[in-house]
Amino acid sequence: MDRRLFLKTSLTGVALATVPSVNAAPKAENNMPKMKAVPKQDAFRLGMAGYTFVKFDIDKTLDVMQKLDVHYLCIKNFHLPLDSDAEQIRAFHDKLASKGVTGYAVGPIYMKTKDEVDKAFAYAKRVGVKLLVGVPNYELLDYTEQKVKDYDIRLAIHLHGPDMPLYPSATDIWNNVCNRDKRMGMCLDIGHDLRYNQNPLADLKKYASRVFDIHLKDVTGNTKKDRAIELGRGKIDFPVFVRLLRKVGYTGSCSLEYEKDMTNPFLGIAESIGYFRAICDATRK
Amino acid sequence: MDRRLFLKTSLTGVALATVPSVNAAPKAENNMPKMKAVPKQDAFRLGMAGYTFVKFDIDKTLDVMQKLDVHYLCIKNFHLPLDSDAEQIRAFHDKLASKGVTGYAVGPIYMKTKDEVDKAFAYAKRVGVKLLVGVPNYELLDYTEQKVKDYDIRLAIHLHGPDMPLYPSATDIWNNVCNRDKRMGMCLDIGHDLRYNQNPLADLKKYASRVFDIHLKDVTGNTKKDRAIELGRGKIDFPVFVRLLRKVGYTGSCSLEYEKDMTNPFLGIAESIGYFRAICDATRK
Repeated sequence: MDRRLFLKTSLTGVALATVPSVNAAPKAENNMPKMKAVPKQDAFRLGMAGYTFVKFDIDKTLDVMQKLDVHYLCIKNFHLPLDSDAEQIRAFHDKLASKGVTGYAVGPIYMKTKDEVDKAFAYAKRVGVKLLVGVPNYELLDYTEQKVKDYDIRLAIHLHGPDMPLYPSATDIWNNVCNRDKRMGMCLDIGHDLRYNQNPLADLKKYASRVFDIHLKDVTGNTKKDRAIELGRGKIDFPVFVRLLRKVGYTGSCSLEYEKDMTNPFLGIAESIGYFRAICDATRK
Repeated sequence: MDRRLFLKTSLTGVALATVPSVNAAPKAENNMPKMKAVPKQDAFRLGMAGYTFVKFDIDKTLDVMQKLDVHYLCIKNFHLPLDSDAEQIRAFHDKLASKGVTGYAVGPIYMKTKDEVDKAFAYAKRVGVKLLVGVPNYELLDYTEQKVKDYDIRLAIHLHGPDMPLYPSATDIWNNVCNRDKRMGMCLDIGHDLRYNQNPLADLKKYASRVFDIHLKDVTGNTKKDRAIELGRGKIDFPVFVRLLRKVGYTGSCSLEYEKDMTNPFLGIAESIGYFRAICDATRK
């Protein structure tokens, strides 16, 4: 044991008193708590869009979600097929629960025929969720509206920006649902909305009453050729976005739909989850 | 093509005018920019402490850093041995540069003898850095101070909290360097400082003039049994911390030293990097 350590551990007070005096330490801030307070819970939840894991099975999906401490999944049919029976659905829910994950919705499900609308709603009911993220063809909206009423399941229509003609923007969805049943709304994909040169933040505010689900996404800009990127590296202003979620009283899920490096997306997913959490922490009063 | 799409793509204005009127869309916020402004650069840099990759070679280290867009590395000797010659050092720097990474410092290097002090400073000089993160035994501080003067290389003493008797806290380092050459200071490990039941934020403020490097770390609490965890999940208040970095005008590196799941740390590293970036983004004016 060296002399200094000997003094510190054996003589303590006496030794310290005999050490040559040094500059007094500058004064501390008394108003700076040593440890952060337990953060207030937000009304919205952080989740994961199943499509993020299109190249991976449900076990890998849940392993990543557990490591990242994310507890809400929008279930895609490649993880739980549309024709799953009650037994398969129960096993699936049990598997999710064993990793602390809740399947809060199903979809996105594309519906090009009445039969596909029927199947989608029957599936959502069997799965036991009250939210269906879906994309019915425009001409099926009357039929779909009746299903929404029959099943009392909310429909969140997913917008896909410039990549497909169906529902390119939040405004397009709004125009198609605003005179319909109040359980018809949108899954606001903020990245695709921006790629269609819309303002996803203004759209969140304008259409809040019909925003039932959100796909968290960052993109490099406001054109079709722009692409998905890790949250924070693109053009979405997340501090403004999160403050707005609170302002409009959003109570749904903000689910990361990460569409970069889809065969090896894990670092990007984790970076994005950390990014969103920190935005929430730093903008909380 | 369905009727609706035909109308939208072929008749545009005319078609829209003949569509049955719907509720007018709520008014947009005019003060909400569509895309975020280019963020202001902070005076401090985000980096990586080499120790994070103790189980991995430099190629894997650089691959992860490149994917996470992190460009500053504190070089550990398991990646570049202390006896490396000029040729090996040049090759190492070239490899870093090919991934957009700069080795900004070396260390932490423990120095228990004068010979080890000699070797550490000679190594830092050969590597070409002006900052050595090091841990000289207390009784070697006079000798080390002379080396700092001879080489004009700054020494950042690393604190290790309750895990070892050498330099447990920022205050201990301060007391040992404050009457010495101004190039002697600390690598403030905010996690270990808290685990020693100190206030790392108050310490950053008090000792800012001697804080030359920072190890970003979050921990579960303020005792020896507490452990490292992903940034944001522990007890460090990062929004306060980042605001303070700016207030004290810190211009060094904030380097993630991630010490959880060290055989498979990648998700945690990425989550932590995303978290820190977002804190910076959300607290910037």
